Amino acid sequence: MRVTAIVSLVVGVLAVGSCARSPGDGAGSAALRQRDLAWAEVAAVGRSVVGIVSFWSDDAVVVPPGAPEIRGKAAIREYVQQSLATPGFRISWNPSSATVSSDGELGYTTGENVVSFSGKDGKPATIKGRYATIWRRDKSGDWKCVVDIWNTP
Amino acid sequence: MRVTAIVSLVVGVLAVGSCARSPGDGAGSAALRQRDLAWAEVAAVGRSVVGIVSFWSDDAVVVPPGAPEIRGKAAIREYVQQSLATPGFRISWNPSSATVSSDGELGYTTGENVVSFSGKDGKPATIKGRYATIWRRDKSGDWKCVVDIWNTP
Repeated sequence: MRVTAIVSLVVGVLAVGSCARSPGDGAGSAALRQRDLAWAEVAAVGRSVVGIVSFWSDDAVVVPPGAPEIRGKAAIREYVQQSLATPGFRISWNPSSATVSSDGELGYTTGENVVSFSGKDGKPATIKGRYATIWRRDKSGDWKCVVDIWNTP
Repeated sequence: MRVTAIVSLVVGVLAVGSCARSPGDGAGSAALRQRDLAWAEVAAVGRSVVGIVSFWSDDAVVVPPGAPEIRGKAAIREYVQQSLATPGFRISWNPSSATVSSDGELGYTTGENVVSFSGKDGKPATIKGRYATIWRRDKSGDWKCVVDIWNTP
C-alpha cells in the first residue's frame, strides 16, 4: 500500500557537532537523535514538502513496505507530496536509539512510527511500524538520511 | 509470518581491515561487502546455527516484517534455529551496496533477499525482500551486524 509507505520525513537546520568516543556514546548520538526528532516534528505538521525532504541526502533511498524503493531526491519529493495529499494522512515517529561513528560522519537511528490516513470506508486507519534510518554528515555538517527502511510487526 | 522473518544470517572469520576515506569508498566498504557475502554463504548452506549467529553482535536487534523484533544473541539464536527447522527453509541475499565510516568502525549494507519454505499446501513458497544491515567493528576487528531490518515490496 502506497500510504503505509511513508515513514521518514523532515527540516530544521541543526548544526550537529562533536564526536562520540565509540558508536552510541556521547554528544554525537544525542545530536543525531535530536535531528531525527526535528524531522519528526516537521513531518508531523505535514505542511512543508521542502522542509520534510531536506532531511534526506540527494542520493537517499527510501524502502517502504509494500512498495518499490524510491531513489533520489526528486522521486522522494514526489513520494512525500503524494503522501501529504492522501486524505487524513498523518505521520509520527520517535527514535528509541541513536548511534554515531567516532569520526562523527556516519550514524543511525531506530524507533517506532505511526502512519494514519482515511481508509476506503472513510474511517481512520492506523499502521504502526518499526524503522531504521542511516545518516551521513554532509559537507556543511548537517546530518542527512541516506537509507530509510521500515516494516510492520 | 514467522518464516518471512529471517533475513540475515552468517560465519566465516574475515579479518576486515583498512579505512575508507569517506563513507562508501575504498577497501573498508569492499571488505564489509565481503563480510556480508560470507554471511550469506553460511546462511545459504543452512547447517551451522553457531556460524550463522556469529555474525550478529551480542546486542543486535533483528526486525522482521510481520513479527516482533528480536533482541540479543540468545533470542536470535532461537530464531535462527526455528527458521532452519522450518520445512523447506532456504535463505539467500546479495548486498547491492556497502558503506563504511572513514574511521572504519561503523558501516551498513543494503540489498535484496529471498526466503523459501514449504507452504501449507506443501508447495514451495518464495518471498523476495529488501534489507538494510548496520554493522559495527568489535574489539577483535570483526564486523558484527547490530541492526537487521527488511521488508517486502
